[in-house]
Amino acid sequence: MRRVAIGGVGLTKFNKDNVSIESLMLSSIKSLFDDTSNLTQKDVDVVITSTNDNSKYLSNIMSELAGISPKISHSVESLCNSGANSVISAFSYIASGLADVALVVGAEKFDNPGLVLEWDMSRGQYKHPVYWSSMFTRSHMRKYGTTMEDLATVSAKNHKNALENPHAYFDKEYSVEDVMQSKNITQDVRVLDCSFPCNGSAAVLLASEEYIKKFTDCPVWLTGLGQKTISAGFTKNEDLTSMKSTKYAASTAYMMSKKGPRDIDVAEIHDAFSICEIIEVEDLGFTEKGMGNKFVKTMYDTQDKKINPRGGLIGSGHPLGATGIAQVVEISKQLQNKAGKRQVSGAKVGLVQNMSAAATSSTVIIFES
Amino acid sequence: MRRVAIGGVGLTKFNKDNVSIESLMLSSIKSLFDDTSNLTQKDVDVVITSTNDNSKYLSNIMSELAGISPKISHSVESLCNSGANSVISAFSYIASGLADVALVVGAEKFDNPGLVLEWDMSRGQYKHPVYWSSMFTRSHMRKYGTTMEDLATVSAKNHKNALENPHAYFDKEYSVEDVMQSKNITQDVRVLDCSFPCNGSAAVLLASEEYIKKFTDCPVWLTGLGQKTISAGFTKNEDLTSMKSTKYAASTAYMMSKKGPRDIDVAEIHDAFSICEIIEVEDLGFTEKGMGNKFVKTMYDTQDKKINPRGGLIGSGHPLGATGIAQVVEISKQLQNKAGKRQVSGAKVGLVQNMSAAATSSTVIIFES
Repeated sequence: MRRVAIGGVGLTKFNKDNVSIESLMLSSIKSLFDDTSNLTQKDVDVVITSTNDNSKYLSNIMSELAGISPKISHSVESLCNSGANSVISAFSYIASGLADVALVVGAEKFDNPGLVLEWDMSRGQYKHPVYWSSMFTRSHMRKYGTTMEDLATVSAKNHKNALENPHAYFDKEYSVEDVMQSKNITQDVRVLDCSFPCNGSAAVLLASEEYIKKFTDCPVWLTGLGQKTISAGFTKNEDLTSMKSTKYAASTAYMMSKKGPRDIDVAEIHDAFSICEIIEVEDLGFTEKGMGNKFVKTMYDTQDKKINPRGGLIGSGHPLGATGIAQVVEISKQLQNKAGKRQVSGAKVGLVQNMSAAATSSTVIIFES
Repeated sequence: MRRVAIGGVGLTKFNKDNVSIESLMLSSIKSLFDDTSNLTQKDVDVVITSTNDNSKYLSNIMSELAGISPKISHSVESLCNSGANSVISAFSYIASGLADVALVVGAEKFDNPGLVLEWDMSRGQYKHPVYWSSMFTRSHMRKYGTTMEDLATVSAKNHKNALENPHAYFDKEYSVEDVMQSKNITQDVRVLDCSFPCNGSAAVLLASEEYIKKFTDCPVWLTGLGQKTISAGFTKNEDLTSMKSTKYAASTAYMMSKKGPRDIDVAEIHDAFSICEIIEVEDLGFTEKGMGNKFVKTMYDTQDKKINPRGGLIGSGHPLGATGIAQVVEISKQLQNKAGKRQVSGAKVGLVQNMSAAATSSTVIIFES
């Protein structure tokens, strides 16, 4: 398997402006070209778009708009996990030898489809993701004594981290008390425990070992990749205090990279709701099972930015098809020591965890500078 | 690069029944499992869906419905070229070593989106694909003296071939005269010169050299793969008598497989309209430039099934996201000597050419038994 690294990144400000999906994508592609030394359109032989937008032929349209005539070009969709899936698809084109340089661009508009899994009829009126997050929350509370304050700590921490992220949708600090006092959506979930759909676009350039030298002196290597789909509907979840697909994906990624949870210096993980981060830090092995609540509290109290330094989904906003790629952008910047005030000092090994639909599928990628 | 082969195929009858996209896909997946010795759900570690349908998370839904819990799972879309793109994506997952066994399933409903490229505003009222085919037709007539009779010969030939294809949408013989007398859609295109959107689903199983032995004694190897996107909109076509993206893609595929046009025993090529087949047999190198019209006439007169033995898109119908995969299914059957009355005697090397949107992008794959 050929080695693959990230050679450049692009990002737009997350917001709710009225713009087209093409404009969003073109902005982050331009940002990527600005960020990447010596990159010309002729270098790019793969263009993959990641989105839940219903427009067709979008990767080819974006190629034309960006002045690129790639060999391989198509869209990838897997709900909220589309972004990380696209990155792994691009990785495989390069790792196999079919291509050398791939541009992956994700974008979503705040009102795009994909916010609710319409197919899952079994959930009746409880289709909105807040209901599965509510069930995870209540289960974790019962089994491990997690409190509303623990949940609010995740949101307060991630909103605080987002203050140093100029691309984030939110730019306001919330105290733990503020989050707990915010509107009840269900008995267990406050509105500030939820990530918000918004506009956003993110892009990354991947290249083979031979080609990466042209674009950067500090490549960020993808050394471990894991993915797992358990199901699509919510009913196959056996244990609502754990995310089985994330555990599988992490195990594969750790094995491939020969790294373990203790080696990870910085991670962007999928905090669609506060409870997700608490469960994920357990399932990714950053702390013991049932100790996620304490773990995030320590992070907050010590202002440790190891988990979700850009503010995660809760602080940055959640443009579905862009989210996984925006996570990769952040980890790349961290491992290149380019994350400004968000920088985790001396970060050499990073992790991204992206998932869909109540963790019925997950992707975990490990990066090394 | 690890070697990859096809180990099993599945297909549905093409029709216009009122069924869901999930039912269509599940039918061809079942057909694939029936066709593939020793295949169990646990073997499959990639599920890719190919469609223009707007439903989200479809690959994960199909995985659950089929009882599969894959590692990698997402949808791929690139308009009419979605199918071949999906096959190449699955190839790259296996060739890179990220996976060993991949199930690719494509489907479309006759009334799905993707029939018209809505984005291409530059074409005003002339958005329907029949207008670009009409421009290609008129250009080829002017430059190479192609006649209405030559065009009608393509349709008559492919409808005749489809008579031996039990999955084809059409099951009626049309003479050259019948086609020429059919309704004028534009000055240069008759209704029987057009392929028809219909329901259909097709599936293929790809596996690595190590795993393929479990599923078949006569694997069909993918030995050459080429793809090219020139643009998305029609206005970048410099020469309306040639398909530049197909020429690029063919050149890459031939080079990779170390085969040339003369080595190809059987081919499924993208006859969205009659003129496409005439231009493609030239651009794929099966005949000299400008001689496509004579070439197809000889095929028809001698009942040679080398080109589009299943009836191509014109005879079989064109369920967009399934088409590229249905082409691969046919070539696999041909190279396994399992094509029944459609069998091209002694076929050892096959080719698939699938494309989108006025040949703005093309895929060419070469297969060997």
